Amino acid sequence: MKTLLLTGKEVKGLLNMPDAILAVEQGYKAYNQNMVEQPPIVSIDITEYNGEMDIKAGYSKATEMIAVKTAVGYWDNPKRYQLPTGLAVITLYDAKNGYPICIMDGSLITGYRTGAAGGVSAKILARENSESVGVIGAGSQARMQVMAINEVLPVKTVKVWSPVEEEQIKYKKDMESLLNISVTPCSQAEEAVSDSDIVVTATPAKALIVRSRWIRPGTHIIAIGADMEGKQELDPKIFSLAKVVVDSKSQCIARGETQNPVKAGILAPEDIYAEIGEILSGTKSGRENQEEVTLFDSTGMSIQDNMTACKIYEKAVISGAGNYIQLI
Amino acid sequence: MKTLLLTGKEVKGLLNMPDAILAVEQGYKAYNQNMVEQPPIVSIDITEYNGEMDIKAGYSKATEMIAVKTAVGYWDNPKRYQLPTGLAVITLYDAKNGYPICIMDGSLITGYRTGAAGGVSAKILARENSESVGVIGAGSQARMQVMAINEVLPVKTVKVWSPVEEEQIKYKKDMESLLNISVTPCSQAEEAVSDSDIVVTATPAKALIVRSRWIRPGTHIIAIGADMEGKQELDPKIFSLAKVVVDSKSQCIARGETQNPVKAGILAPEDIYAEIGEILSGTKSGRENQEEVTLFDSTGMSIQDNMTACKIYEKAVISGAGNYIQLI
Repeated sequence: MKTLLLTGKEVKGLLNMPDAILAVEQGYKAYNQNMVEQPPIVSIDITEYNGEMDIKAGYSKATEMIAVKTAVGYWDNPKRYQLPTGLAVITLYDAKNGYPICIMDGSLITGYRTGAAGGVSAKILARENSESVGVIGAGSQARMQVMAINEVLPVKTVKVWSPVEEEQIKYKKDMESLLNISVTPCSQAEEAVSDSDIVVTATPAKALIVRSRWIRPGTHIIAIGADMEGKQELDPKIFSLAKVVVDSKSQCIARGETQNPVKAGILAPEDIYAEIGEILSGTKSGRENQEEVTLFDSTGMSIQDNMTACKIYEKAVISGAGNYIQLI
Repeated sequence: MKTLLLTGKEVKGLLNMPDAILAVEQGYKAYNQNMVEQPPIVSIDITEYNGEMDIKAGYSKATEMIAVKTAVGYWDNPKRYQLPTGLAVITLYDAKNGYPICIMDGSLITGYRTGAAGGVSAKILARENSESVGVIGAGSQARMQVMAINEVLPVKTVKVWSPVEEEQIKYKKDMESLLNISVTPCSQAEEAVSDSDIVVTATPAKALIVRSRWIRPGTHIIAIGADMEGKQELDPKIFSLAKVVVDSKSQCIARGETQNPVKAGILAPEDIYAEIGEILSGTKSGRENQEEVTLFDSTGMSIQDNMTACKIYEKAVISGAGNYIQLI
C-alpha cells in the first residue's frame, strides 16, 4: 500500500463549490443517521505566538474513512512569515486497516466546506426567492459563504460591511469579477442587515454586532464566525425570535454563537429546533412559511472535512493527480 | 517553506535506542517543568473492523514544535492485509507559525519511545546492580523494553513468559542474537517474575497475570501493557507494597495499570509517589534503598513522540535524508 500526497495546488485543481455542497450535505445526513463517530475537538493554544491548533477527527461509516484534520490559526503569520493565517492538513485513513491513504493540504478544503455549510442551510432554510445577501465581514468566509449561497439561490445583490473600509472595496472588486452579482459596501452594519433576505456573519468578533431589531421577518441568518468559547456576533435576543438550527448541538452550545443565548438564559438547549442533518434526512421540516426567521449556527464538524476530502481523493485517483510514496 | 517526508525506512536508518532514551528523559523533564501543553488523548473505536485510533498531540516549548501522532491498532491486519497491527504517523508543526515541517512514519518511533520509557525508569528506580529481567509477553514491547534496559544497566539474563510457546522460542532466538544476553523461556509466569531484579509486563491482558506474592523486595516493575480502560496485568495489591511512579497521573489513573488499584480502593490518587519527570528534575528522589519495590506505570505521552520525532527530524536535516514537498 502507498500514500497519496496532494499539494495545495493539486487540491485547488480538484475542488469546486457544487462538490463541496453535496459532500457537506451527505456529511450532515450521515451524522444524524448515526454513521459518524466524532470525538470532541482538541485544541492547543500557543499563546506565545498568538496561535492555536484545532484537531478535528472522525470516522465516517458512509465512506469507510477516518479523517484527521489539524487546522491552525496564527494571526501574525501574514506579516511575520508571509504565510496565511489559517493552514490545515487532512489525512485520510482506511477505516478497515488504519493505513494512511492520502495526505492533503486541507486549507482550501476548510474554506470550501465551511462555505458549503452556509449554502446547504440556505437551500432548506432561506426563502426560495431570496435574492439579497447582507454580509458582516469581508474576509475569506465572507467570500465562500456568498459563493455557496449563489450555487443554491438566485443571488443578485450583496451588501457588505466590515470595520476596515479598504477590505470592503477589495471585497466588492473580487466578488463582482467572480460572480454575476452587484456588491454594495455599507458604512453601517445595520444597512447590510436590515433589508437582506439572507444575513451572513463571518468575523472573529467577541461582542455583538448584529442587533435583534434589525432583523426582518423571513430572514435567514447564517452564523459562521463564532466557533470558540468567547466569540459572539449576534444579539442573543435574535435566538428567541428565530427557528434555531445547528450543525451539532453539543458543539454549538459549547463553542458556537449558540453559547451566548444559552449562557444568558435566553435559549434553553431543548429550544434548539434541530440539527441540520435532521432536516436534510426528512425527520424535521425546514422553513415552514415566508414569515419565520431562521438561524443556522455552524461550528464545523469533522464529517464535513471527511466527506469533502474523500471526494477530492476520489477525483485525484481518477485523474491521476498527486504523487504516491511508501510512507509506511 | 516546505514539508520534509520521512518514510519508515528512512526513520529506521536514523533511530537508535540511546537517542530515544535521551529524548524521552528530556520529554519527561519538560512535562514536569510546565514546558508542555498536552490535551487529553482522543480515541476512536472502529468496532466493525476490530480497530482503534488514538490521537496524541502536544506542544513542547523545549523544541518549539507541536507533534500530532495518529496511532492505530488493528488486530486483524497481519492476516487480512499483511500489515502490522500497529501503524502510526507523526507530523511536526513549527509552533511559531503552525507550518507542517515534517511528516514521518511514526510506527517504529512509537516502539522505541515506549521502550525508552522503561529504560529511563530503570535508570532511576531499579537497583544499580540489576542484572536479571523477567518479561511477561514476547511481542514487540517485550523486545524494546529489554533493549532499553540493556542500555542503562548491566543486563545478563532474561526470563520470558508468554502464553504462546513458539513466541518464547522466537523471542529467545531474536534477543540472544541482538544483545549479549542469555534468554530462558519459562513455562509459568511466576518463574519469570520471582527472582528477577526487574519485571516488565508487556501484554494486552485484561486480567491480572503477576501476583503480589511473587514480588521480591528490591524489585523494579515496569507496567507497559495497560494503556486503556479495562486493561490489567498486575495484582492491584502490588501497588500497596510499591513506590508508585507514573508518567502522567491523570492518564495513569484513567487508563494505565494504576486504574485497577484506584478502582479497587487499594490506592488513593494522592498515594502515587511521583510523576517520573519530578524525579528526573530532582524535585523528588528515585530509589532510596535496596529493599523497596518500585513500580513505573507508563501510558505513553505525546511529549515522548514529540522529543523523539524532533531528534529524528534534526538528524534527517543534517544527513540530507528524506524528500521535501510543497504540501501547502
